[in-house]
Amino acid sequence: MTTTLVRRATAELVGTAFLVAAVVGSGIAAQRLSPDDTGLQLLENSLATGAVLVALILALQPVSASFNPVVTLVERVLGRIDSVTTGVLVVAQLAGGLAGVVVANLMFDLDAVSVSTHERGGSGQLLGEVVATLGLVLVVFGSLRSARIETVAFAVGGYITAAYWFTSSTSFANPAVTVARMLSDTFAGIDPASVPAFVLMQLVGGAIGAALVLLLHPTPQEA
Amino acid sequence: MTTTLVRRATAELVGTAFLVAAVVGSGIAAQRLSPDDTGLQLLENSLATGAVLVALILALQPVSASFNPVVTLVERVLGRIDSVTTGVLVVAQLAGGLAGVVVANLMFDLDAVSVSTHERGGSGQLLGEVVATLGLVLVVFGSLRSARIETVAFAVGGYITAAYWFTSSTSFANPAVTVARMLSDTFAGIDPASVPAFVLMQLVGGAIGAALVLLLHPTPQEA
Amino acid sequence: MTTTLVRRATAELVGTAFLVAAVVGSGIAAQRLSPDDTGLQLLENSLATGAVLVALILALQPVSASFNPVVTLVERVLGRIDSVTTGVLVVAQLAGGLAGVVVANLMFDLDAVSVSTHERGGSGQLLGEVVATLGLVLVVFGSLRSARIETVAFAVGGYITAAYWFTSSTSFANPAVTVARMLSDTFAGIDPASVPAFVLMQLVGGAIGAALVLLLHPTPQEA
Amino acid sequence: MTTTLVRRATAELVGTAFLVAAVVGSGIAAQRLSPDDTGLQLLENSLATGAVLVALILALQPVSASFNPVVTLVERVLGRIDSVTTGVLVVAQLAGGLAGVVVANLMFDLDAVSVSTHERGGSGQLLGEVVATLGLVLVVFGSLRSARIETVAFAVGGYITAAYWFTSSTSFANPAVTVARMLSDTFAGIDPASVPAFVLMQLVGGAIGAALVLLLHPTPQEA
Repeated sequence: MTTTLVRRATAELVGTAFLVAAVVGSGIAAQRLSPDDTGLQLLENSLATGAVLVALILALQPVSASFNPVVTLVERVLGRIDSVTTGVLVVAQLAGGLAGVVVANLMFDLDAVSVSTHERGGSGQLLGEVVATLGLVLVVFGSLRSARIETVAFAVGGYITAAYWFTSSTSFANPAVTVARMLSDTFAGIDPASVPAFVLMQLVGGAIGAALVLLLHPTPQEA
Repeated sequence: MTTTLVRRATAELVGTAFLVAAVVGSGIAAQRLSPDDTGLQLLENSLATGAVLVALILALQPVSASFNPVVTLVERVLGRIDSVTTGVLVVAQLAGGLAGVVVANLMFDLDAVSVSTHERGGSGQLLGEVVATLGLVLVVFGSLRSARIETVAFAVGGYITAAYWFTSSTSFANPAVTVARMLSDTFAGIDPASVPAFVLMQLVGGAIGAALVLLLHPTPQEA
Repeated sequence: MTTTLVRRATAELVGTAFLVAAVVGSGIAAQRLSPDDTGLQLLENSLATGAVLVALILALQPVSASFNPVVTLVERVLGRIDSVTTGVLVVAQLAGGLAGVVVANLMFDLDAVSVSTHERGGSGQLLGEVVATLGLVLVVFGSLRSARIETVAFAVGGYITAAYWFTSSTSFANPAVTVARMLSDTFAGIDPASVPAFVLMQLVGGAIGAALVLLLHPTPQEA
Repeated sequence: MTTTLVRRATAELVGTAFLVAAVVGSGIAAQRLSPDDTGLQLLENSLATGAVLVALILALQPVSASFNPVVTLVERVLGRIDSVTTGVLVVAQLAGGLAGVVVANLMFDLDAVSVSTHERGGSGQLLGEVVATLGLVLVVFGSLRSARIETVAFAVGGYITAAYWFTSSTSFANPAVTVARMLSDTFAGIDPASVPAFVLMQLVGGAIGAALVLLLHPTPQEA
């Protein structure tokens, strides 16, 4: 691997670790501190996730800041990165996600790993994952292909905060984060049996999103 | 239609669909998850709406990002677009709004369409719609006519989040969204009989807002 | 008056009207919708106020966007505007504040004017008004004197949202808004007898803030 | 001291004072106004802190806006400032923190100083302080070393808002703020006996963060 690719993989690993730690950790805190209102828990969880995404993308984007295999795959499809880079970054994202969930569990004095029993699915939620990931790809690449690189952080932070609320699945929209969330039997967890369908729907949503981006922005105007 | 107009209409359709899905979907989630406090429901609904607007405008604005017939009509009045474009974009917004409400209903395992029974109106709320739309036009075109294109997303997102709270009508301020919201008998719904007065007040507010913009910015300084 | 001064006064009047309508209107909505938790009411009120400030400053700043006699007086002291302009803008702010409170009352189906009976004061709150206004002047002119004009909106929006919480007075920090808030006997109201001390403390805080700005930025670097 | 260093120290003192006043003051307000839900208290506290950080960094950064001895020490290690400047700024931050906590207590009609009895610690929270400070250093210097100076305010504001939630310690991440928070026996307080371990973990996190920044950005691209 080149030095640049090592740096990019490090950024994806660290960024995805912080993202998952934020999703899982804020979920645990919300569940403990606001036990009487599930909506308030989700508000706390969604605001923390959106806010950390703004920070992580602003700080790591000059190196690499996808934190999401679907986004990285769309970058490959659009010809922004090669296949080796794609593979390395996705592995880094998956590894970062696992690191993040372990750190979150340990910070809240839980076992390093506990398999979630939180079943998720059904046609509404699966449609939710398609819509959520479609929208995320639209927001990321709609910005990138019109040279709005500086504001991707705010677009993604705003989008994810909202998508927690407007999709019935609370918008996982990210295979690396979905896999990691199997390993915490807390607010943000997901039962392993529910994961394959979620990831499949995310890939479907990503493909539709990429097609839409190509329709809206046939020629990239990258800065 | 030219290729550019197809792309613009697509952006308006997709953007309005996501906007309405966010308004209606987050309303359903809020109502289910925070059943004990209507204010908390509105807080969740308003933050999700403002946040998704930031994302959608940042990502789609280089193509087209009005998502609102009143805004498009004011663009026509100010000579920024021609009549054919105006008509096509408004149709796209209306179609997008209908798509968005259906998707929101389905994501939450409801019937694709259910007519709202939520009556809205009265002099206070109708004044609210005038004020809300007046302010929206002021915020959008005050920015555009002083070449502040890059920050319209933040201005509109902030404005709408606030307007949910400071108008008694919770600030529909958008005929395409108002029409779509008839088709979900949930938190964000509106009884069809209440729609004509709401839309009329939005047009009145838009006209006053346009006049005010011309007073404040007689000469556009567009970037 | 010159055409430019008319436009500036109009922007101050309209902007202050929306600011006061947002403060008072969101206070009424919060009180009605979240009756069981005063903190939740203040959260709703503070987020709506901060969000509308971001929108109003972004949209009106190219014309005029102080909305606050203390800020306008500091502009005079720093030599940015002349005395006639100062007087006209302050009158516009006071008039706008009165218009805003009347509109807020009417939108929520209350009498156009009702004198507040909400007594405020005591040494803690008066210190709070000094601190709140000092900080506001520091934030506004610290930005302006280092040529950070584009981000004043975010700085002020963030500051005021926070200051609702960290000052015991909930941070009025604005004589035009304080006077207007006498005229709504609701959540955001203030008893007329409490107003003179609040305004005096705001002027003291403004003066300390101006001195601090001159110490930190002896030479302006205005864009 | 040179005039520039006096100005920088003043900015650090005033900024840290406002930061601590915001942390402690909003904690007191939240505790009083939302007595029934600890999570809602933390939401109010975290949003106020993040919002004031955006404002303070935007307004004071052109002079000096670290407000945190760990950040200042990392600046020294990276060769951005000399040792005398480092010492002076850290002293200013500690003094500012003490001023801020006294002002917060007085604004809420409490004794100027009351020693906190709020014990904090345990392996989870100590890990939390390492993670929180590591992330803060990554966010600040990841931005600075890629010439993203203008968006540090948003990155830090977003990060700290989230870190309140995703770390079990609620993310002190700042020795000057930690020391100051000993002096208010309220929501945000910390028992003096808990302080040394917190500060030590912050220094450890800062060192790991600095190493990571050097790995990701071996060569600074400063504007």
